[in-house]
Amino acid sequence: MPKGTRDFSPQVMKRRNRITRTIEEVYKKYGFDPIETPAMEKLSTLTGKYGEEGDKLLFKILNSGDYLAKADDAVLASKSSGKLTSTIAGKGLRYDLTVPFARFVVQHQSEITFPFRRYQMQPVWRADRPQKGRYREFWQCDADVIGTDSLLCEADFIKIYHEVFNALGLSNYELRINHRKVLEAIAKTCHFQGSFTDFTVAIDKLDKIGWEGVSRELLQRGADEATLPVLEDLLRKSEFNSELLDYLTTVLVDCEEKDTGLKELREVLGYLNFDLNLSLDLSLARGLDYYTGCIFEAVVPDSGIGSVSGGGRYDDLTGIFGLNGLSGIGISFGLDRIYDVMMAMNLFPADELENKILFCHFDEKAMNYCLNIADTVRLNGGTAVVYTERKKIGKQFDYANKCGFKWVVVVGDNEMSDGVVQLKNMETGEQNQVSIAEIHKHLE
Amino acid sequence: MPKGTRDFSPQVMKRRNRITRTIEEVYKKYGFDPIETPAMEKLSTLTGKYGEEGDKLLFKILNSGDYLAKADDAVLASKSSGKLTSTIAGKGLRYDLTVPFARFVVQHQSEITFPFRRYQMQPVWRADRPQKGRYREFWQCDADVIGTDSLLCEADFIKIYHEVFNALGLSNYELRINHRKVLEAIAKTCHFQGSFTDFTVAIDKLDKIGWEGVSRELLQRGADEATLPVLEDLLRKSEFNSELLDYLTTVLVDCEEKDTGLKELREVLGYLNFDLNLSLDLSLARGLDYYTGCIFEAVVPDSGIGSVSGGGRYDDLTGIFGLNGLSGIGISFGLDRIYDVMMAMNLFPADELENKILFCHFDEKAMNYCLNIADTVRLNGGTAVVYTERKKIGKQFDYANKCGFKWVVVVGDNEMSDGVVQLKNMETGEQNQVSIAEIHKHLE
Repeated sequence: MPKGTRDFSPQVMKRRNRITRTIEEVYKKYGFDPIETPAMEKLSTLTGKYGEEGDKLLFKILNSGDYLAKADDAVLASKSSGKLTSTIAGKGLRYDLTVPFARFVVQHQSEITFPFRRYQMQPVWRADRPQKGRYREFWQCDADVIGTDSLLCEADFIKIYHEVFNALGLSNYELRINHRKVLEAIAKTCHFQGSFTDFTVAIDKLDKIGWEGVSRELLQRGADEATLPVLEDLLRKSEFNSELLDYLTTVLVDCEEKDTGLKELREVLGYLNFDLNLSLDLSLARGLDYYTGCIFEAVVPDSGIGSVSGGGRYDDLTGIFGLNGLSGIGISFGLDRIYDVMMAMNLFPADELENKILFCHFDEKAMNYCLNIADTVRLNGGTAVVYTERKKIGKQFDYANKCGFKWVVVVGDNEMSDGVVQLKNMETGEQNQVSIAEIHKHLE
Repeated sequence: MPKGTRDFSPQVMKRRNRITRTIEEVYKKYGFDPIETPAMEKLSTLTGKYGEEGDKLLFKILNSGDYLAKADDAVLASKSSGKLTSTIAGKGLRYDLTVPFARFVVQHQSEITFPFRRYQMQPVWRADRPQKGRYREFWQCDADVIGTDSLLCEADFIKIYHEVFNALGLSNYELRINHRKVLEAIAKTCHFQGSFTDFTVAIDKLDKIGWEGVSRELLQRGADEATLPVLEDLLRKSEFNSELLDYLTTVLVDCEEKDTGLKELREVLGYLNFDLNLSLDLSLARGLDYYTGCIFEAVVPDSGIGSVSGGGRYDDLTGIFGLNGLSGIGISFGLDRIYDVMMAMNLFPADELENKILFCHFDEKAMNYCLNIADTVRLNGGTAVVYTERKKIGKQFDYANKCGFKWVVVVGDNEMSDGVVQLKNMETGEQNQVSIAEIHKHLE
C-alpha cells in the first residue's frame, strides 16, 4: 500500500458507513441531490486553483503510450522536472470536490435547475506529508447550494451541522461562524496598512501564538496601536447573538463592509429558532481566497483533532470556468477526521453481534438440510450463511463468534427427523427448538 | 473532463445507487462484509498481474517532487518512455478489485477469520480506448469467499446472481457456467497438441467466428480431426443438468481432470433446488489465467451488451503475494454495464416525484412562517426545503416540478392567521388545508 493510504477492514467500513449514511440522510432531508465526478480531472482544471502549495500536492497521471515522444530535448537534458510535467502528464487526481463541482456546474449549466442543491461524497487525494490525522487519500462529504444569494442557505447549513453531529453522538460540537466582510471592517478599524491577506494570516494564528504574537505581527505589518485593545477585546467575544452584533456596530468604523457583514449575520441569526451550538469567532479566517460572506468551521472540543468540517459562501466559484454571477455556499465534512474524533472519544459502540444466522451441522446430510432452510430465511429477508467447512461444532461456533453472528442454528439427526432446528442466541446463550417455518420470526 | 470519464447527474446517480444498493443488500444477506482499498497501489503490486496488454492499460502516477533527479541520463537522451517509467512513477491506479483484494488478504492475514466473505464496490481505472460501453473509470461490485474449497460457495454465488438480477428486473438474465478441468478434459479428448491456452482461445471465439472458424483454428493447432464432431456436438449443448453431465462422462476421455471437473459440477448442481437461469456453456473460457474450477458469466440476452458479470474459482490468488494454499471464489458485477443494459431495456421507471415538500411563500413574513414548519417536518423525518428566492408562486411551482417535489406547501396571509397551510400533491393535483402539526401525516 502506498504511504498515506489505508485499507479498511469490515469493522472499520461499518463505522465509516455509519458516518457517511448519517451525513447523506441529513443532506437528503434538506433537499440535496447526489452527483459524482471522475477521480481524474484535466490538470488544466486543477492547476492554479489551490495556490502554489496546492499545485505541488496534486497527484499527476502519466500520459499513456510514448509520453516522452513530444518532450523537449533541452528540458530532458536539464532534468527539469517542473518544466517536463506539463508535457508528460495531462491529468491529475482531484484535490477536493469543490473545483470539480464548479466545473460540473459550468459544463452542465443548461441541464441544471438553479438554485442547485447537490451533495457529493467521494475520496480526494493530496500528496501531503502523511502524519497523524492527515492522509493522502481521504473522503470529503460536501453539500452546496449554488445559484442563490439567499441567506436561508446559511441557516440550512447551520441546522444540517446540528442534525449531523447530534445523530453521530457529537452533541458537544461547536460551530464557529465569521463573516469575511466583518473581518474586512475589523481590518479597517485597525487602520491596517498591509494587505487583507496579511491581516487574516496574523489573526488566524491566535490559537497558536496567542494575542501577544498576533498583536506584534499586526503592528509590524502596519496596524494602528491605539486600536489594538478594541481588537483584543473583540477576539475574546464568542456569543453569536444580537447583543454582540450591536456591540460590533458600535466599535467598528463605518464602512460598506461593516453594514453588509453585520446585516447578513443578523439575518442569519433571525432564521434560527433553537440552540445550534453556534459561536461567533472573529479570528476565524479560513478559505478567504474564495469565501466572500459567512465562514463556518466545526470542531469537537477535547477530541485532540482540529476542524472536522468547514464551509462558507462564495460569490464567484464558477467564474474560474467562465460562468459568472452564480453565488453559492457549501460545507464539507471530513469523514476521516470525524472517524478519528469518534474513535478518540470512544463513541463507537462495542462491536455488536449482527442479526444474522450461521447454520452449523454435524454431517453432510445435516448440511444439505440446512441449505434449504437458509434459502427460506433469506427469502424472508434474513441474513443466513451455511458454514462451508466440515469441522467440529465447537469450531463452527468459534467462527460464528468471530464473525459477529448473533444467531446459530444447529442441526443434527433429531432435528432433521422432527423437522425443527435448535436456534441459539449467541448474546444471551438462550437456545430454543423452533420449526423451520418460524425461524425468521425469532430474529428481530 | 478527461475522455472516457463521466459526470453523474442526480438522475443518473439515483439509478446507479439503486443498482449498487441492490447488489449490496444481496451480498449482505449471504453474509459478506464490506472492505475498501486505496485507489492507488504500488506499481509493483499491479504490474505483471494482467498480462502485457493489461500493464499498458495501467494509469501510472508521477512521483512527487523532483522526479527526474534520479533518472538515467542515457534513458532521457534516448527518450525511452518504457525505460523511464519505473524511475518516475511508483504508484498506479487499481485496474480491478481482485489484485488489491489479494494484497489485502496477504497483508491482513493475521486479523482475518477464514473463510473470509468480503464485498467491495469501488471504481477501477483502465487506459483503454474509450468506446460504447467501455469507460476509463468504471465501478466493479465484487464479492469473494477466500480460504475454502467448499462448493457451497459456488452455489451461494449462483443464488446471488438470481437474487440480484431478479431484484433489478433483469429476470431474463442467463448465467453461463463452465469448469476449467472439464475444458482440459475436452482438450485431451480432441488430442489437442497445442497449449491449453491455444485451445481455449480458439473455443472462446465460437460466438464471433462460428464453428467453422473454430474447427479450422483447432485443426491448425493440432486437434484430431476425428474428434471434432464430438466437440461440435458438445458446444451445442446448454442444459446444466445431470443428463448432460452423464453424457459428458461417456464422451470425454478418462482423465483426472474429467473426474474432478464433472464431480464438482455434479456437487454444485446438487446444492441447487430451484430454477436459477443456469446453462452449461462449454465454450466459456474466461479468466483461465487464474480460474481453476467453476467459471461464471452472466449475460442479459437481447440487451445488445455483452457480459455484465463474471467470476470463478481460483486456487492460488494470493500466491502472487507469497501466501499459498488459499482457495477462493469470487464474482464481479459491472455497475456501468448493468446500468447500460437497464437503460437499453428501458427498465428504469419514469422519474418519479419524490416524497419531499417545497415550501412556497407570497412574502417575507410567509417565508419566515415556513421556516418553522419545515423544521417540524424534518424533525418528523420528512424532507423539506423552503424555497430560497422571492419569486412569483408560478415560478416556485416550476421549481418544485423540475426538482421532483411531490408536495408543495403554500402559505399566504389567510393560512398564517388560521395556523394552517395548503398542502398540494403535485402528482394528483389534490390540495388540502391541513394543520401544521399534521403535515407529516399526509406524506406517505
